[in-house]
Amino acid sequence: MIFDPETDKPQEECGVFGMYTPTPLDLAWLTYLGMFALQHRGQEAAGMCVSDGERFHVEKDLGLVTQVFDERRLDSVRLANARVSIGHVRYSTTGSNLRFNAQPLTTRTNKGILGLAHNGNFVNAREVRGEMLLEGALFQTTNDSEVMLNLIAREADLDLIEATAAAMKRLKGGFACVMMSRTALLGFRDPNGVRPLVIGQRDGVDGEVGAYVLASEPCALYAVGARLVRDVLPGELVWIDRSGLHSLMVQPKVPTPCAFEWIYFARSDSQLDGIDTHESRIRMGEQLAREFPVDADIVVPVPDSGMGAAIGYARESGIPFDYGLYKNPYAGRTFIAPTQEARELKVKMKLSPTSAVRGKRVVLIDDSIVRGTTSRQIVNLLREAGATEVHFRVSSPAIKHPCFYGIDTAARKELVASTHTQEEIRELIGADTLSFISERGLREAVGGPGLCLACFNGEYPAGTPLLNDVDKLALEV
Amino acid sequence: MIFDPETDKPQEECGVFGMYTPTPLDLAWLTYLGMFALQHRGQEAAGMCVSDGERFHVEKDLGLVTQVFDERRLDSVRLANARVSIGHVRYSTTGSNLRFNAQPLTTRTNKGILGLAHNGNFVNAREVRGEMLLEGALFQTTNDSEVMLNLIAREADLDLIEATAAAMKRLKGGFACVMMSRTALLGFRDPNGVRPLVIGQRDGVDGEVGAYVLASEPCALYAVGARLVRDVLPGELVWIDRSGLHSLMVQPKVPTPCAFEWIYFARSDSQLDGIDTHESRIRMGEQLAREFPVDADIVVPVPDSGMGAAIGYARESGIPFDYGLYKNPYAGRTFIAPTQEARELKVKMKLSPTSAVRGKRVVLIDDSIVRGTTSRQIVNLLREAGATEVHFRVSSPAIKHPCFYGIDTAARKELVASTHTQEEIRELIGADTLSFISERGLREAVGGPGLCLACFNGEYPAGTPLLNDVDKLALEV
Amino acid sequence: MIFDPETDKPQEECGVFGMYTPTPLDLAWLTYLGMFALQHRGQEAAGMCVSDGERFHVEKDLGLVTQVFDERRLDSVRLANARVSIGHVRYSTTGSNLRFNAQPLTTRTNKGILGLAHNGNFVNAREVRGEMLLEGALFQTTNDSEVMLNLIAREADLDLIEATAAAMKRLKGGFACVMMSRTALLGFRDPNGVRPLVIGQRDGVDGEVGAYVLASEPCALYAVGARLVRDVLPGELVWIDRSGLHSLMVQPKVPTPCAFEWIYFARSDSQLDGIDTHESRIRMGEQLAREFPVDADIVVPVPDSGMGAAIGYARESGIPFDYGLYKNPYAGRTFIAPTQEARELKVKMKLSPTSAVRGKRVVLIDDSIVRGTTSRQIVNLLREAGATEVHFRVSSPAIKHPCFYGIDTAARKELVASTHTQEEIRELIGADTLSFISERGLREAVGGPGLCLACFNGEYPAGTPLLNDVDKLALEV
Amino acid sequence: MIFDPETDKPQEECGVFGMYTPTPLDLAWLTYLGMFALQHRGQEAAGMCVSDGERFHVEKDLGLVTQVFDERRLDSVRLANARVSIGHVRYSTTGSNLRFNAQPLTTRTNKGILGLAHNGNFVNAREVRGEMLLEGALFQTTNDSEVMLNLIAREADLDLIEATAAAMKRLKGGFACVMMSRTALLGFRDPNGVRPLVIGQRDGVDGEVGAYVLASEPCALYAVGARLVRDVLPGELVWIDRSGLHSLMVQPKVPTPCAFEWIYFARSDSQLDGIDTHESRIRMGEQLAREFPVDADIVVPVPDSGMGAAIGYARESGIPFDYGLYKNPYAGRTFIAPTQEARELKVKMKLSPTSAVRGKRVVLIDDSIVRGTTSRQIVNLLREAGATEVHFRVSSPAIKHPCFYGIDTAARKELVASTHTQEEIRELIGADTLSFISERGLREAVGGPGLCLACFNGEYPAGTPLLNDVDKLALEV
Repeated sequence: MIFDPETDKPQEECGVFGMYTPTPLDLAWLTYLGMFALQHRGQEAAGMCVSDGERFHVEKDLGLVTQVFDERRLDSVRLANARVSIGHVRYSTTGSNLRFNAQPLTTRTNKGILGLAHNGNFVNAREVRGEMLLEGALFQTTNDSEVMLNLIAREADLDLIEATAAAMKRLKGGFACVMMSRTALLGFRDPNGVRPLVIGQRDGVDGEVGAYVLASEPCALYAVGARLVRDVLPGELVWIDRSGLHSLMVQPKVPTPCAFEWIYFARSDSQLDGIDTHESRIRMGEQLAREFPVDADIVVPVPDSGMGAAIGYARESGIPFDYGLYKNPYAGRTFIAPTQEARELKVKMKLSPTSAVRGKRVVLIDDSIVRGTTSRQIVNLLREAGATEVHFRVSSPAIKHPCFYGIDTAARKELVASTHTQEEIRELIGADTLSFISERGLREAVGGPGLCLACFNGEYPAGTPLLNDVDKLALEV
Repeated sequence: MIFDPETDKPQEECGVFGMYTPTPLDLAWLTYLGMFALQHRGQEAAGMCVSDGERFHVEKDLGLVTQVFDERRLDSVRLANARVSIGHVRYSTTGSNLRFNAQPLTTRTNKGILGLAHNGNFVNAREVRGEMLLEGALFQTTNDSEVMLNLIAREADLDLIEATAAAMKRLKGGFACVMMSRTALLGFRDPNGVRPLVIGQRDGVDGEVGAYVLASEPCALYAVGARLVRDVLPGELVWIDRSGLHSLMVQPKVPTPCAFEWIYFARSDSQLDGIDTHESRIRMGEQLAREFPVDADIVVPVPDSGMGAAIGYARESGIPFDYGLYKNPYAGRTFIAPTQEARELKVKMKLSPTSAVRGKRVVLIDDSIVRGTTSRQIVNLLREAGATEVHFRVSSPAIKHPCFYGIDTAARKELVASTHTQEEIRELIGADTLSFISERGLREAVGGPGLCLACFNGEYPAGTPLLNDVDKLALEV
Repeated sequence: MIFDPETDKPQEECGVFGMYTPTPLDLAWLTYLGMFALQHRGQEAAGMCVSDGERFHVEKDLGLVTQVFDERRLDSVRLANARVSIGHVRYSTTGSNLRFNAQPLTTRTNKGILGLAHNGNFVNAREVRGEMLLEGALFQTTNDSEVMLNLIAREADLDLIEATAAAMKRLKGGFACVMMSRTALLGFRDPNGVRPLVIGQRDGVDGEVGAYVLASEPCALYAVGARLVRDVLPGELVWIDRSGLHSLMVQPKVPTPCAFEWIYFARSDSQLDGIDTHESRIRMGEQLAREFPVDADIVVPVPDSGMGAAIGYARESGIPFDYGLYKNPYAGRTFIAPTQEARELKVKMKLSPTSAVRGKRVVLIDDSIVRGTTSRQIVNLLREAGATEVHFRVSSPAIKHPCFYGIDTAARKELVASTHTQEEIRELIGADTLSFISERGLREAVGGPGLCLACFNGEYPAGTPLLNDVDKLALEV
Repeated sequence: MIFDPETDKPQEECGVFGMYTPTPLDLAWLTYLGMFALQHRGQEAAGMCVSDGERFHVEKDLGLVTQVFDERRLDSVRLANARVSIGHVRYSTTGSNLRFNAQPLTTRTNKGILGLAHNGNFVNAREVRGEMLLEGALFQTTNDSEVMLNLIAREADLDLIEATAAAMKRLKGGFACVMMSRTALLGFRDPNGVRPLVIGQRDGVDGEVGAYVLASEPCALYAVGARLVRDVLPGELVWIDRSGLHSLMVQPKVPTPCAFEWIYFARSDSQLDGIDTHESRIRMGEQLAREFPVDADIVVPVPDSGMGAAIGYARESGIPFDYGLYKNPYAGRTFIAPTQEARELKVKMKLSPTSAVRGKRVVLIDDSIVRGTTSRQIVNLLREAGATEVHFRVSSPAIKHPCFYGIDTAARKELVASTHTQEEIRELIGADTLSFISERGLREAVGGPGLCLACFNGEYPAGTPLLNDVDKLALEV
């Protein structure tokens, strides 16, 4: 996992978006709106492609959607008769070559020009890349999309759909991709459906078929005036062209979508695989209250992500909900390295307790604990503000294992729960009590068929990378 | 008032901050932290001065605190032995000369170099400016601080404190200022205390006296590790120098602090004139529930500012609180002018309903209605998401009059409540019912001695500008 | 003097420009062209004001004319019915408050809004500033223009012309200023005419009077399609308004224009005080050849400023002119601090010898030597490239004294000729012979009535600053 | 050809640079210096790679060398033990995807990571690209370097040198390339040597072998303290690694270097294929004077590129050389679109006549005429300034054919000499007489074995592109 040093939260890597319209629309603007709605899934790079069937424009850079796409740069991808577009937001890894890795990746191939944007991770990407290098392929980025595109281009005798299906079969892991040619939009999801992808549609005008939309979350459909049609199914390849929406089930397996989408990643106005995020978060809070009740005066969420679970905990426990932590809406942007003392003041730039906690026994609701550093500071803030007790309740189980499915691998040693007992963590963060929701409780709160809980229990439904796959050929530039 | 076109809310003009330390501190960094905590009071310009008793550095520009003060520019005002500093955040008016009006204003005078930053408005500034122009003064900005500084410099025979007191007496309106020379920090508040200003102090190290802090709100004190000592009193001039904290009551009148600080402006972790903002907002919600009860299923705040009142309404009414509107945390930044259809999608970039409102009778809590345009869109969003009834409750009375005290004058005709009946407004915004808290109810919810309610009832405690004061000499550049 | 570390040349401080048009013109664009033609007189800041009689727009910033005035910012000062404008380019001093000192300076006064831009230096500015501070004036910049404007505003009972004349009488030094109100353009030159200022006029259309132009050099007149009318006379105040061009001789003295305008500053397509720069440079070269002949193979200019004198030297001596030093046209922009070795490579980034010098006895012509560091490197370059002898000929006398007239005061100890004999300098720079043109020779080459030769002979025609004028009140921010 | 709209000159496309050092050097800084010396060969993009044998850093962007490589970005490619580097400057084509086409191109291959930068053009690139697309290759740019790298990678069984030699054989046209792996620097030149490439070496320290340098021109060798060793030969592949400098003659043909390098492109301090540019330009001027003598008063160069030929013309004819056109050194940067009248003032922003031409019969020397528009304006400027006759002499023959060797193809109809007789051109530009140097005269002036004169006579020594090579697969993104 990439840990955002500001939030100490697991970090979703990317969000994807795509549109196909049978009648001309301002796809540059609509794709901008869709990407903006997915901004929470990646804040460090943004990009889009637009085509009108002939021209194929691309623009991408480091920055927020509103930074990359100022008026000038949005205009540079505008096409009067735009028909297909894809967009991407990315939470980048550190390094000097960030800019060259921004998505969508575009390339000419024997299937014409293609643009590809992905969310997730191919666990066998390095192995496949090594194989293709030996065959004469070039790899200009460290971006997994390039592996997918090479696999597609290698199938010179197949058409685009057949070649994409063949490439899907060759790759393992958790991934959701959107791809476009000049005349078609494609989308596909890994066999287990670990990463999400949904299909939406706008109402058609004058009897015309309305534009189709693909997106990581339904909130991006609503943002462009579309309604949710359905989720892309695990292992399914869908494509939209002049003749409509097509589907091919390439290799479906038992669905195990990522539990963290409901715990934290997805927006509270999204529904994934038929399950509403806000409602599931309220159920997580209710479940926590049943599993770990406590005698207290108020229930306080860590804003903004603990909100739903805090409402649920308050409802089930009967303890009043209150707004005990103010979050500075201007925080979250980079600022300069502080001095020694200033480092201690830093958490206060983001969070500040209100009078609600003074003299109160507080149930503090957060969605997860990764390293525990921010948790310790929050507990401390509450105590300084006069909270007499702090009972920490977490709406996810303890994170003990790295994720290989779309959230880059972090060192296990950084996960506080993989090296400390629950009691040690409680002591570390200074809470009076500490409880994590149970795996069973989480499953019930989310509901639905299955979940990927690999980061909690180490059971990886979609395989893991080979340990010796880091060969010389695949070294990072 | 300046209406933020994004929020349709009244907009505080500025926040001020100042520090004096008897022992060297990194005042550039601390002032940065203090200004960051006041960012909600002004987002379009930021500036600070720092002195070590000899050098006097200033840096200011358009932008957020974190944008203006990147590492390089913060370093440019850093001094190893810094003793005094002031900072300012500003919500600017439109126009081509914004940059030249950023604060603090610095100038050499017969009292030495002075830096001044103000929040508020001198209602007789144009009159005084015209008078001084005739005497040979230059006015290089349209910034009221320049009037204050000219008044101080004109008193050539008085020392800095006496001259400042004399200037305070000459000016009318609602204002709170911080000022610094090379060796002292000054702060003063208008006779009615319309605009807020508080005093804080850090703990001293090794028996030394701790640094003093002045700020528009206590949250900025906490941000730099200081505790709240007291409010600067209406009509009081305070100054801090080598010998400590001094006070002079220049012209105290009946205190009438601005009610909007508690309704909306001040952060929910601030206390002003002895009254906690979060608690007063909860009381406003409770009062609203008593004054305008309704049979409904959930209470939903317009995020983030309706939060406190919604909690209060829910508590008093027994109707469950829920998180029915998701606010995109990346909204609020400028983005490009949309197409016709896109304009309708625009409010969705910021707010999006969650599943909580589906099939529910919703009590929607907001803090104010200015033009009503955003209110209508929010009601519409809730109905589209399946809300069966929307009962709009506002935690401020209807705004019918312009403000002259620190929040620039807007045309009365833009205030929907000055041209429409309450029933007309209800119809305009499409709510099932609409109620504003009563003036009496607001007074009780805030508590305390008196309040400026001029924008609600047209009674201006600190005077109004002359109607004919816009003469040729004072024309804007 | 400010020494440009790149060129080791004396550096002109500023260029000024102004226009008044009886019929509407795109003054923003024309002023941009005029400033661009004066870019050689100041490369670090640029600014302009434009008025249509009512509105009064100003824009200025650090940077080259083309950097400050991109399309957006030029549009911000455009006015459909523009009548008056002034512009300024500046070579700034170092310091942290550069931005706040950019010109033109604009201010409201009892004569209406005024904009002022100056080239040159008031030697008694600090004395006058101190006096006015005691009377209650504010000084927000360290810019001498502010002193002039305060003097004008102080004369509350006089009209703008009378007050300006009064201010001119109060100030000493070498200066040339342009000033504008909403309806008039003013220009004035110091009593000795040390700094240049010329008057031009465009042809009128349809019987209308053509627009008037003021500028530091005629090249800026030509740039806007105007022809040279005449020089503003030493001590003269001119103004142009609806009724035409007016003149007032305020305090003429014996003219002593700055000799360096002809030696180096002014463009070779300019004529000042009736004397053509290119022709005078050729005469300087001819004079040098007569005064200091040498047996050699080629005459090589240090590009670009030694060009004219080299042509003259070649003509008079009969030795062939050749292009022996290539100048990289991309040099002159700032670049990063080099390593130790790289510092030695640095001069090569700018100048590089051609094959012309190989095996040749070279007469090298430069216009001046300040510290001698660059001269030494150039001589060295020529020797490395195979020059067998290098005879250095300088078209100005040795600089031994600081300038107080528009070229900031540098420490005398930095002037190599004030601390070394001519033979020591020759040895320092490694030339075989070294000669400076004689003062008499320079006078003859330029011709005309008189010249300020203060930096050569220490005779200051327009006075010098008081030695003790740096009092506390006037300390730099 | 790409015509620079500012200069109306043929435009060299690129400059390349590379270094290999056996002992650590600050290659980032040295490569920066080398690229800076080649800035005249391409002003719109710059990039470099540096490796220390393990790490492989790349940085590139649109802009001048000093703009792309500010301190921060130069640091990002700095390596303490740097051994190999390449750099590139480019004059880009117009289009929306400029940024993605900047060089060097870097990619992982079965030979390890490679970086490649080229100057010139492969005339059969599209044909080869189409062939490889069918085999499964991806093309992410429209950059010819990508074709070269794919050809190299395709030879999976050959080592890097063999594979590069094989790729050289497959490609036709005029090109000069530098390439690097982590441990070696390669350089190669097309079979006819149309585009230049030279080898240099620094002196070794302490008995060590000095660093090797490859560059488009010797001036870049001098810029990094190296001396010229020799030219890379037409059709030669050289590489430098731990064991020294190696050479392989891959496919030498009759040398026909591009004549324009001597006429205009190369700096006047460069020597290519043994011939000095400055000297050859003087000989061109002398030749012109012999071929087309005229009775006149002065010889004036169009600065700066007509300088050498003007000196030659003056020497041979005995007519005095003079500096009749001042060139504003700040011109050449982009500026905003002018109004109608302003367009006519535009040429004056760049060039302005001096008094030298007044009343004179002028021989005006320029290096080439492409469209003739600027030529007409210059002649007009001279006449306005009082020139009584203008005799235009051009040191290249008339350009009648497009170039396919490194200077992109322009439409033939834009070449004034391909659609007009010499007399028509004379009339068009308004000169009294007009003469172009003869092809024979140019050959004699340059000397040496052979020259590519294709743009004058249509004889293409290195082939031309297929007319039908613009297939769908190779369409520009």
